[in-house]
Formats: sequence, C-alpha cells, structure tokens
Amino acid sequence: MRNETGVRAVVYGVGAMGSLLTRQLLEKGVEIVGAVGRSPEKVGRDLGVVAGLDHELGVAITDDAETLLATCGADIAVVAVGSTLAAMAPHFRACLAAGVDVITLEEEALYPWHTAPHIAAELDALGRAHGTTLAASGMQDVHWCLTVGAIMASAQRIARVRGRSTWMPDEYGPEVAQACYVGWDPDTAAEAAVDEGWGLTARATLEAVAALSGLVPTGCSIRAVPIVAEQDVRAERLRTTIPRGSTLGMSEVVRVTTAEHIDLELEMAGYVHRPGERPVNEWSIEGEPTLYVRCDDFPGRVVTCATLVNRIPDVLAGPPGLVTIDRLPLPRYRPGPLVHPAPGRRR
Amino acid sequence: MRNETGVRAVVYGVGAMGSLLTRQLLEKGVEIVGAVGRSPEKVGRDLGVVAGLDHELGVAITDDAETLLATCGADIAVVAVGSTLAAMAPHFRACLAAGVDVITLEEEALYPWHTAPHIAAELDALGRAHGTTLAASGMQDVHWCLTVGAIMASAQRIARVRGRSTWMPDEYGPEVAQACYVGWDPDTAAEAAVDEGWGLTARATLEAVAALSGLVPTGCSIRAVPIVAEQDVRAERLRTTIPRGSTLGMSEVVRVTTAEHIDLELEMAGYVHRPGERPVNEWSIEGEPTLYVRCDDFPGRVVTCATLVNRIPDVLAGPPGLVTIDRLPLPRYRPGPLVHPAPGRRR
Repeated sequence: MRNETGVRAVVYGVGAMGSLLTRQLLEKGVEIVGAVGRSPEKVGRDLGVVAGLDHELGVAITDDAETLLATCGADIAVVAVGSTLAAMAPHFRACLAAGVDVITLEEEALYPWHTAPHIAAELDALGRAHGTTLAASGMQDVHWCLTVGAIMASAQRIARVRGRSTWMPDEYGPEVAQACYVGWDPDTAAEAAVDEGWGLTARATLEAVAALSGLVPTGCSIRAVPIVAEQDVRAERLRTTIPRGSTLGMSEVVRVTTAEHIDLELEMAGYVHRPGERPVNEWSIEGEPTLYVRCDDFPGRVVTCATLVNRIPDVLAGPPGLVTIDRLPLPRYRPGPLVHPAPGRRR
Repeated sequence: MRNETGVRAVVYGVGAMGSLLTRQLLEKGVEIVGAVGRSPEKVGRDLGVVAGLDHELGVAITDDAETLLATCGADIAVVAVGSTLAAMAPHFRACLAAGVDVITLEEEALYPWHTAPHIAAELDALGRAHGTTLAASGMQDVHWCLTVGAIMASAQRIARVRGRSTWMPDEYGPEVAQACYVGWDPDTAAEAAVDEGWGLTARATLEAVAALSGLVPTGCSIRAVPIVAEQDVRAERLRTTIPRGSTLGMSEVVRVTTAEHIDLELEMAGYVHRPGERPVNEWSIEGEPTLYVRCDDFPGRVVTCATLVNRIPDVLAGPPGLVTIDRLPLPRYRPGPLVHPAPGRRR
C-alpha cells in the first residue's frame, strides 16, 4: 500500500555517493521507486546489491532515465553525480520536465548564477514552467555556507573570511580520484586543472556565502595547486601507491572580492591524505573580533549525503525553479521518516 | 537633518554591555536618541562619557524611561540588561507600549515559552496590540543555536548534542561577576544558585535549538556546579584576588530530553579563568557521523553585542509580538550603515 504522505525518490547515479544515499534514504523511510546508472556492469542489476546492502530492493538499475521518470511516480530525483552544471543539465532537464523535483550534490548548482548564467536561467525557467524545483546541497550547504554566514553575523567588522577544507577523493571512488589527478605528474595535472575549469566548487560556495550575507561580488581569482607526495603514500581504498613526486590531489584556491571590501577565500584541497592526516574544515572570520571555527576529523562523505537527505523536504516544499540556498530555509535534522510537506502538489 | 531611512535607537542599560553596544551602534550609523540608566552616578551624565568614548554624544542618561520613550522617536530599544524575563518584563512592556521595538540580550527571552509562558504570552499580546516586536539575541543566537541547528542538519542520525561554553564574568562588569558568585563560599553559592533559578540561559538555548530543529522537549534537568579555585587566582578586571577554596564562578549544566530520543546538553561555565585559560565554545553532535566543532579563544562579549547589532534590521522587519529565533531569518553581517527595512512602519 502506497503511503500518501511519504516521499518517493529515484536514485540518479549509483556510484559511491549514490550507494551511501540509498542506505540513508531507506533509513529515513523514503520509498525508492527507481535507479539510474550508466555503467554496463550495473545496468539491470538490483540497486540493493549494487549499493552494498545485504538484500535486494526490487529496483533494477536502468540507463533509460526518461522512461523511468515518466512512469515511476517519483517526487524527487536524488542526483548523486558531480561535475559541472553544463554536463549535468541534460539530466536535470529530464527530471524537471517529467514533473520530478531534483536535489543534487553537483557542486556548481549550489550557486551557478555567475559561472553558468544561461544554463541556470534556462533550468530555472524549465522548473517554473513545470512546477518543479532544482536545488543543490552537500557539505558546502551547512559547513561552508550557512554556518559561515551565521558566524559572520556575529562580527562587528569583517575584513576577510578564509576557509580551508581538506577531503579525501579516494573516499569517493576511483572516478573522483581521477578527477582530482591522483597519481598524475604535477605539471600535467596543474595544466589540466586550468583547462578543465577547476575551482567551480569553491567559487560557487563563496558566491553562495556572499548571497547569504548580502555582499556583492566584484571579482574572482582561481588557482589550482597540485599537492605533491614528498614520499610514497599508500592509497588503500584505490589499491595503489602514489609514488614520491606524483600528485596526491589538487587544491583549488579561490578568492572572491566584494563591493563591501570583504575578501572571501577558500582553499579546498582534495587529496590522498598522508598517514595520520585527517580531513579538516576550518574557517577564520578576520576583523572585530577575529573568530576561528574548526571541525577536526571532518567526515565529509557522510555529511554530504546526510545533508542532502535532510534537505529533501525543503526542496519538495520549495518554490518552482532553480532555488539556491540563499532562498531555502535553514536546513534541519530530520529524524525520519521523511514526510512529503505538500502532498497535494504531487501530480 | 533626520535620515528617514536610518535607524534610531535608545540604549537601555548603560553598564559594560551598553557601553560596548553604544560604540558598535555608532559605528553602524545608528542614531542614538536616548539612554536609560538607573545608577545615581550615571543619571544625568552624557552617554558618550559614560560609555568611555572620547567625546560627548549630546545624549543625557535618564532614569525616566517612560518620558524618554514617549518623546524620543526611537525605532528600537537596545536593552542591554540581563536577568530573567520576569525581572525585565516591566522594561519590555514600557517599550512595546510606547511603539518602540525591543532587542535584548536578556537570556530567557531567547526562548521563554516553557520557562515563563504567561509573561511570554502577555508580552507577545502586548507587542501584537501595538505593532511592536520583541526579540533576543547574543552569542547564543549564532553560536549555540543557529550553527548547532545547521550542523545537526548535516547528520544522518543523532543520539546526543553536547555543548560546552566558558565565559569570563569579570569581562562583563562587577554586577555580572556577583551574579556568578565570584569569590563566594562554594556551598553557599551552590545553594543560592538553585534558589535563584540558575540555568535559565542554557535551558532557553537548548529549547531554541529544539524549536529550530523541530524536536519536542519532554523534560529538563538543571545542575548548578560551583567552580572552585585550586589556588589563588587574580581577577585583574575586578581588582581582586579569588582565594584558594573560593568560587571562581558557576557552571550550569542543563539537559533537555526530546520525544525524538535526542538528548540536548549544555554546560555553560561563567568563571574567572585561570592564567593561560581562554574561553572556548565547543559542540559535539554524536551519532552518524559524530561531528565536533569548536571556537577557541572565544570573544563572547564582542560577539554578543555584535550579533545583537546585526540583528536589528531583522527585528525592525519582523512580525509584531515576541519573536523567538526560530521565527527570525538567518542573521547576516551588516557592513553598515544600518538601514530601516520598513520605514513606513515607523509611527
């Protein structure tokens, strides 16, 4: 029997993040009504098995998103695939046009108004036309935007906001490790990073911070800095060793200037951590007073997926269109089961 | 010439906090149109002099709040006096009935619905009747409520939330030090703390966290634990030495249970810090994942006043009545000058 106040979701992307999200969604009482994957070794298999659960879910992974979206009755697609807004736009379009809301961990979607204004406007219009909502979340939402914006509101005068966050691409699977140039020659990696528009995540984050704080960005600089192994580093999850002199990963260092003369800076370093190193998320708000806040041993992967799941009711209740976090309510912990906040909206 | 979009404030309470707020308000372009004090050595003197500025402001401190409020044309009263809601209610009533909004650092007003329901309801009704708003802010607003609530929203499962915050009552002046039993015999202090309803600040904070997170409180326990000097401790700001065996201050340890089986705990310790000790604000969210966040060397006094100043436009734009932080927007840093968000509302 279908629960009329429950939430029905499609897991869109069945990699490391989609697998974790599958478990988290089930724990929060979400009914998974479909799964989209593209790799031939996953298509046709059961989502529960691919996600590493100990049981089948009766949900076969398909690569035919359009048919699935048209027939499965989902409220929301949980798009667990990263990359740029341009690369993900076809997937978002398919969902929005099929009457399915989208929440994604695609990083640029957090605040794409400056970096991809035309695609953002088109997706916004598409959502408005179909009464569907597109929003992004992840660790940035809470730990780099909302808490930073709130802490800024406890200062009398701010000259500079600086964040530093490290994360372990090897935790997110081989595709993400490859995207962070793990194991590459550093010079080649630095060139490739520039070519590939590296820095979008940190830039979208800082522009979201500016929007939350009512600051007006006036410029942006981006540097991509390879992090080089000073000695051989074992990457257990990738079953490989990064030799001395090779790239452990990439640091994107982004600085956004504002009309209010407050510099916003974020160094976001995704690399295979050395033995004993743990991810950290730390921010300083420099001014009167200067404030430091830090999360040690930061569990970014679980945080990213959990934040996204807790955001689902905000997206279902949100206005149509592309809704960036400056227009969403303060997220809240959802003990579960998740309840559809506006079941009448369901078509 | 009066600036029609500026903000006009009364500084209500001219102790250590009111003095700091005076400077901060002026730095943010707020026009100070009056000041209320009660101590005979301050009444009649200029606010600028009493606040330790290097110039007069042309604002004489008065103890006749009613006359001042009726004539000064203030938009908002900045009530820089602590204590309980019951003790402060006459002052809040005078402002609200005179058509003046209130923002206060009185701690219970942050979330008084459970601890002082009748007074809260009466003040709420009074504000609604007069179209005026009463809200509280301070370090709790950002650092104990909003960031904690946001970080909770990045967890998949929470069993317990624990906060520990230390602060230095000697920074806030001799009255606050006295209220923290600095220098008292520990047994006498512990008894007095229980008699005086110690624990309201931490309780109001945790109940605000629950409200922000949609959790339902089911119970509350409060312990008052004196912090005892193990050796003589010099309290330079109070120009005294706390002898070994006497009370350095008081810790309030509050635990709120919820229907969702999440325990909320806050240990809030106000005491004269030992040499080398610095205030800390640290929280752990225990569950999946467990998250730690900490602010070292926490500048609580400046943060409390700055947060309150940044909140002023939210209060001026807020709905009438007693508005607790679960109904205010995410606070934002205001570079200044502060602008009245709804000047048409001004009478």
